[in-house]
Amino acid sequence: MAVLITGVAGFIGCNLAKILLEQGHTVFGVDNLCCGTMNNLTDISDHPYFVFNKVDMAELPEYSKVFTSFQSTELITEVWHLAANSDIPTGVSDPNVDFRDTFLTTFNTLLLMQSFKVGNLLFASSSAVYGDLGHKTLVENIGPLLPISNYGAMKLASEAIISAAAESYLSRVCVFRFPNVVGVPATHGVILDFVRKLKENPHQLTVLGNGTQQKCYLHVDELIDAMLFICKTAQEKICLYNVGAVDEGATVRFIAEETVRCAAPGANILYGEGNKGWVGDVSRFTYSVEKLRLLGWNPRLSSCEAVSKAVRQIIKQEQEVMI
Amino acid sequence: MAVLITGVAGFIGCNLAKILLEQGHTVFGVDNLCCGTMNNLTDISDHPYFVFNKVDMAELPEYSKVFTSFQSTELITEVWHLAANSDIPTGVSDPNVDFRDTFLTTFNTLLLMQSFKVGNLLFASSSAVYGDLGHKTLVENIGPLLPISNYGAMKLASEAIISAAAESYLSRVCVFRFPNVVGVPATHGVILDFVRKLKENPHQLTVLGNGTQQKCYLHVDELIDAMLFICKTAQEKICLYNVGAVDEGATVRFIAEETVRCAAPGANILYGEGNKGWVGDVSRFTYSVEKLRLLGWNPRLSSCEAVSKAVRQIIKQEQEVMI
Repeated sequence: MAVLITGVAGFIGCNLAKILLEQGHTVFGVDNLCCGTMNNLTDISDHPYFVFNKVDMAELPEYSKVFTSFQSTELITEVWHLAANSDIPTGVSDPNVDFRDTFLTTFNTLLLMQSFKVGNLLFASSSAVYGDLGHKTLVENIGPLLPISNYGAMKLASEAIISAAAESYLSRVCVFRFPNVVGVPATHGVILDFVRKLKENPHQLTVLGNGTQQKCYLHVDELIDAMLFICKTAQEKICLYNVGAVDEGATVRFIAEETVRCAAPGANILYGEGNKGWVGDVSRFTYSVEKLRLLGWNPRLSSCEAVSKAVRQIIKQEQEVMI
Repeated sequence: MAVLITGVAGFIGCNLAKILLEQGHTVFGVDNLCCGTMNNLTDISDHPYFVFNKVDMAELPEYSKVFTSFQSTELITEVWHLAANSDIPTGVSDPNVDFRDTFLTTFNTLLLMQSFKVGNLLFASSSAVYGDLGHKTLVENIGPLLPISNYGAMKLASEAIISAAAESYLSRVCVFRFPNVVGVPATHGVILDFVRKLKENPHQLTVLGNGTQQKCYLHVDELIDAMLFICKTAQEKICLYNVGAVDEGATVRFIAEETVRCAAPGANILYGEGNKGWVGDVSRFTYSVEKLRLLGWNPRLSSCEAVSKAVRQIIKQEQEVMI
């Protein structure tokens, strides 16, 4: 069975590709290499069943050419659509970034799936579709969905157009609403920021906001495990699941202290003001993964444990960069 | 105060323009004249405070030129964004139609509002964002939103990007989730279809589906009244409201019988099979307008009364076309 992964050179894509190759699938991968890097593909680039093409999926003609060439090698039976802008603040200042990289990539993937009759789509959505619902628990059946970042908006737009496609020509869809995901290879995110800042100045760490922002974190290994479990187990035509840890999350303060403890013990932490990092950042939310637990999946690590594991991995990753 | 109405030559746009002109506003209007017609603007085209430009809002450079020229005449203080593809079945067979006419028109309107610092947006969304939720009552805080037509998907995508814009640079947003709206000038829809069919053959009316499809209908006069009421009364930064009648709706059977009674008494009605008209059609739903009622607005007409009024108006409209 051949699988297409969009955004394969990104943090989650490259981890997923590894697992699917281990399971014996042919993996076709595409990426525009804006957020992802070839470096992330080092482990699998020589694998006999892995084929990679750099392509801007927002440009239909070139994307179509690549899709056709894959399809003529081996029939694609499912698409894991992970490609998206992953730099949320950039997308807030320029709406075109998420329009192209987060939404048009979805729109064009669907056009190609329709014309090549590929029926199964697995889609990486995000908790950002919920927006800032204050103290309400983010559960799949809550509304209205009022995202506060263009990233969240274009993920919701993607969910919407996928849903319409499921009514019309797709045979099965899984929509995973991701929490914050941590692990390696880290390309962005708060832990990587802290590790790099401490590498520059091991005596002091400056933190955006007052440290009380609190979010759920899931380790990438667990995320992939959960997605594969949902694919195998859920029965709906559109399987829409929050994926995350079973807790209230980890605070920025915890992440800062843990990074300091492991990377530069004794460094002074300087907090800013307010509990929002940047426009479009949701400061605190409770994420329900009850639907996923009822399906039978539970994470092994808490948000804090996932952060701790990732802190160690990212410190190691950045040391290797130095060498 | 100058107001911009997008989709001004459409069924709802031209009715709204009339009211806003009566209230003393300058009204700038744009339309691509795909669904709307110049005919709809006959009543107001000579009004000294009405300026119309034909423009494809999906094309930013030409839209921007028109917006700039309006803005140099009189500052726009609010935008009523009604432009959208209104032919849902066409949009189901070609996703590009709703992508361009329903979503890109919104995306580009926001880009222009940001660059010209216009802070108030009134947006015509749709009950189609809910998709087919079976027997659940469609209330604003329900989820997940899984639209089954590209039209519904691109309306939801528009809501999403508007919501992100409200976090970042818009000062106030109203999102109206429209039910089926009836009245004149009718450009599409089931009543117009029936009237035209009966004009061709006054002895027989063929109906798609078995007639049990049931939907809420609101008369366009009431819709505009409700929107203006929400604008004036609601206090949220993003005012999101279902707008509709306070009942379970009118069936296709009722609409067929009423049209036959008024247009061609005694004509035979032939029903089809199943309770869906076409892919992307939601067959039956209950629409909650409780939030709007709590705000203090109630429609005067039921769904059936709105249909009856519209049937008479549309028969008259089509008779005038003949002359």
